[in-house]
Amino acid sequence: MKLTILGFNSAIPTTRSNSTSQLLVARNKYFLIDCGEGTQIQLRKAHAKFSRINHIFISHLHGDHVFGLVGLLSSFRLLGRKETMNIYGPKGIKELIETQLRLTESVSNFNLNFTELSSKTSELIYEDEKICVWTIPLKHRIYTNGFLFKEKTRSRRLNMDIISQYPEIEICDYQNLKSGKDFVCGDGKVLKNEYLTLPPKHSYSYAFCSDTSYNPDIISIIKEVDLLYHEATFLDDLRELAHKTGHTTALQAAEIAKEAKVKHLILGHFSNRYTDISVFEKEAETVFPHVILPEEFLVIDFKDLEKQNF
Amino acid sequence: MKLTILGFNSAIPTTRSNSTSQLLVARNKYFLIDCGEGTQIQLRKAHAKFSRINHIFISHLHGDHVFGLVGLLSSFRLLGRKETMNIYGPKGIKELIETQLRLTESVSNFNLNFTELSSKTSELIYEDEKICVWTIPLKHRIYTNGFLFKEKTRSRRLNMDIISQYPEIEICDYQNLKSGKDFVCGDGKVLKNEYLTLPPKHSYSYAFCSDTSYNPDIISIIKEVDLLYHEATFLDDLRELAHKTGHTTALQAAEIAKEAKVKHLILGHFSNRYTDISVFEKEAETVFPHVILPEEFLVIDFKDLEKQNF
Repeated sequence: MKLTILGFNSAIPTTRSNSTSQLLVARNKYFLIDCGEGTQIQLRKAHAKFSRINHIFISHLHGDHVFGLVGLLSSFRLLGRKETMNIYGPKGIKELIETQLRLTESVSNFNLNFTELSSKTSELIYEDEKICVWTIPLKHRIYTNGFLFKEKTRSRRLNMDIISQYPEIEICDYQNLKSGKDFVCGDGKVLKNEYLTLPPKHSYSYAFCSDTSYNPDIISIIKEVDLLYHEATFLDDLRELAHKTGHTTALQAAEIAKEAKVKHLILGHFSNRYTDISVFEKEAETVFPHVILPEEFLVIDFKDLEKQNF
Repeated sequence: MKLTILGFNSAIPTTRSNSTSQLLVARNKYFLIDCGEGTQIQLRKAHAKFSRINHIFISHLHGDHVFGLVGLLSSFRLLGRKETMNIYGPKGIKELIETQLRLTESVSNFNLNFTELSSKTSELIYEDEKICVWTIPLKHRIYTNGFLFKEKTRSRRLNMDIISQYPEIEICDYQNLKSGKDFVCGDGKVLKNEYLTLPPKHSYSYAFCSDTSYNPDIISIIKEVDLLYHEATFLDDLRELAHKTGHTTALQAAEIAKEAKVKHLILGHFSNRYTDISVFEKEAETVFPHVILPEEFLVIDFKDLEKQNF
């Protein structure tokens, strides 16, 4: 998994950063998460192969998370896209996009496949042979979901040092071994799978949670993810304001990270009242040690997360 | 008058330039012309006092001219704007904006006053004591208007060298003199206005024409303007493609400028197929000498146009 931060500003895009958008590349699939105004430009600046995006996840219908979507879709049209684009977002997103495409006479040369969300409990909304995506119901002023991206358990790895000692085991048997089956020799002797194979490589997981007030209900859903993005619009001295506006403080985000035993926490969605964003990192680190501050075009390779603290 | 180029790209915003948007400041009024995606960020980067914009003119409802509007209006709301915003654009613009504001639950704290245009002939759409704005009907794939901004004739200037010779003329008479009236002395003698005053300062005019196919019908409307912005999506070897897609070549734009006897021509809306935009200037200059190439954040002070060729 690789995550690229395209924008992390709250409410109003500024010269500091664009509004929220992130590109997650997982097992060679490109997932766009939120699409604030200017996202298509950010994708270009990030040199992302953005024509490979086939799935777009929109957390909620506030402008700073969705106003870039129609422009991105229009540009895909002009660039001759043919593949269906799958869009997951709150009820209303279809009308939001289709009204604009109709009024701007942007007849599309590719299908838009909308999955409109309204469930208040976590649901599986995407699945292929390698990846699953679940919603993470959040508490904001408007219906909002975070998204949990999980790689499925990978195959067990062949232990060739052992396997090579058994000429009976042929290449055509490897798939069975990878999938966990034992090997039965010609003489009826059973070689246990654990003996012939190594445990699978780690399957990565990423949880995106924006925008939300402090909400411990999400802890069971995001348990032990490799990376949690959690909004931190304010510092904790403005906890009341955070609650009132449906947002979280850096301290609260860190508490969620700690309770959920996630491996790393990346913050974002900072209020424009703060000019120096390092204050969010400092506050969160009083509770949880592995905090990452976002930068525009920061790329987080999940392999590196295993090796080091950012 | 001062014109700031906020973006001049065609169709798709790129790292070269944002989509079309310009800020015209005329007699202390701020007029925004077109509002492609990312315009609010461009206004910030240009250090424009954009809260002073009270009038927004949208040429047509293609995304590269309008997708930034809802984001700009939403940001005005978040910044606490109270003044009415006046928006002039094709029929449909009200639905385009209001649908988005409704679905994103952006209840506005200021009024939006839409003037929806549908006339096929030039009409006066804005007038105050100093400025008039007329539409310039264009020929594009979708209903489109350019806009002509004209300062009204300024007052005549007092010729104090002469006036000071007549103690009878008092300060309370100055307004009459400025407005062109003669002065009648106590003995009945008439001092002609032309004797007491100097001609008014030049009144500037700006014509914005994008997007359009070659359309000589506009010449009578834009006659002798100080500055003409005319789209030039293609070079003249692609004249057929320009015509088919409702666009103009650099050579054709220059022909319009020449026939209309405008003072300066600024080009824009270049197709992304051209990496070096100086080719547009070269082609246009074969027909018309005073050609300006746009740059992001280029500011054209109309006073400087009088003094020099850009």
